[in-house]
Amino acid sequence: MVMMNKEDFKTILKKDKKIIDRAFEEKFKDDNPLNEALRYATDSGKRIRPILFLESYKMLTKKSYLNDEIIEMALNIEMIHAYSLVHDDLPSMDNDDLRRGKPTVHKKFGEDIAILIGDSLLNLAFENSLNLAKNGQRFLDASLYLSKASGIDGMIKGQVYDLRRNLEIDLSYILEVYKNKTSRLFMAACVMAGLLNGLSEDKLKALENYAYYLGLSFQIQDDLLDKNEKNELNILSCKSLDEANSLLLDFNNKAKENINKFKNNDFHIYLIDYLTERTK
Amino acid sequence: MVMMNKEDFKTILKKDKKIIDRAFEEKFKDDNPLNEALRYATDSGKRIRPILFLESYKMLTKKSYLNDEIIEMALNIEMIHAYSLVHDDLPSMDNDDLRRGKPTVHKKFGEDIAILIGDSLLNLAFENSLNLAKNGQRFLDASLYLSKASGIDGMIKGQVYDLRRNLEIDLSYILEVYKNKTSRLFMAACVMAGLLNGLSEDKLKALENYAYYLGLSFQIQDDLLDKNEKNELNILSCKSLDEANSLLLDFNNKAKENINKFKNNDFHIYLIDYLTERTK
Repeated sequence: MVMMNKEDFKTILKKDKKIIDRAFEEKFKDDNPLNEALRYATDSGKRIRPILFLESYKMLTKKSYLNDEIIEMALNIEMIHAYSLVHDDLPSMDNDDLRRGKPTVHKKFGEDIAILIGDSLLNLAFENSLNLAKNGQRFLDASLYLSKASGIDGMIKGQVYDLRRNLEIDLSYILEVYKNKTSRLFMAACVMAGLLNGLSEDKLKALENYAYYLGLSFQIQDDLLDKNEKNELNILSCKSLDEANSLLLDFNNKAKENINKFKNNDFHIYLIDYLTERTK
Repeated sequence: MVMMNKEDFKTILKKDKKIIDRAFEEKFKDDNPLNEALRYATDSGKRIRPILFLESYKMLTKKSYLNDEIIEMALNIEMIHAYSLVHDDLPSMDNDDLRRGKPTVHKKFGEDIAILIGDSLLNLAFENSLNLAKNGQRFLDASLYLSKASGIDGMIKGQVYDLRRNLEIDLSYILEVYKNKTSRLFMAACVMAGLLNGLSEDKLKALENYAYYLGLSFQIQDDLLDKNEKNELNILSCKSLDEANSLLLDFNNKAKENINKFKNNDFHIYLIDYLTERTK
């Protein structure tokens, strides 16, 4: 295997993003009355989660070919992420008017349609997962992991803790929110690839840990970039800039330690720096 | 098989409702922060859809015993129904303050929590369906049918057509909304039982038709009872009372014709009259 340089890494990001972008374009083409809004809700974003899934799958299979089932599985992760953004942006939640430089779904199509678009994306992930489960037990296990990661003991719980904060917000509270709101889908992206490849418990745990720390680092870097955002959880509310930076470094190292248990992990190593170096 | 009388029928309704009520109580017991609101959103209702599933299952197996997997499958149907009610009641949708005589979920817990409760119930149905799919292909097929019935070509599409009405509302438009908003989950309840029992295409179609007409009759009777509700679709906007009544009778007859292709169909026959005789 040829070692990857930073340009190769960026080429992969672009190529994978294009795969996801195109697959979404294909998905919402018929005359369903919601398709315009569904395309709108899924036509952009960095696609980090599905890319992490695709590259974890490639790392484990040592093949560069991705079949349709694998791409569909990647879309399910992104649909769960996209639905959570559409609902989180709503007036009664984070009340955001813009997302990725354009009006949020409820600003563009109305609040009622935004609620239904979120529901539709979650339902599509549900339907698609069951369709994929026909490919066998490993597909079923992978989708089951995703459904748990996104539910009331995962992503949704993170959103509740974020909306209804404790009076005492300390580091462990913030990390619990970040774990559920962000790391859980990163963990799903990695562990689903592991489950599809029949990895041992040890290896699954290492992948899960990598993604857990990667998700935390991603959020902490967000805090460092978003220093002035109103009313959002921010690690700088309970830690100094130096402390936050050293925590970030620590989490990055832990992510590296875990992914170092795998061969051909260049992409995953680059991704750590990429996600924690990004500027707004 | 002993013939059922009307009292037997009502006893079954009560007994089945208790099975569903208890199963929900059991489900949301741990210290998850959403459990109080989840219990609230699932603690009442007539349970028509899960009961229709349980009784269809019993009709086809000719057994009165229901194992845990079958009850869990029934809960999935009810969770999909319950999530749709929580979201439909929201201010930007139907803006209802009361549901079944008590404050709606958003009135009691806030709009943000109501959105998340809907998401949670749909996600739980998703997770639970995948868990049940471990029991084999028939379970997988049944859940796949449910996911399609509830998605953008089913229940959600009905809601969109209801919210964003055409200028010209005629009978076929109204029936299309009722089919998607109501009949689709009734059809799921019946067809899922059929799929679990490996019925032939013909028999599945007959069950599906029964449920389709039953759902339409249920909605039309609702229109006749709710005559004075503001801003809701109502068949009386395009048909006279006499015409609506004769349509109801026609649909009831078609439901009967279809269910008459099955033995031990007493419950299903009584259900037609029960759903179209109910007073508010």
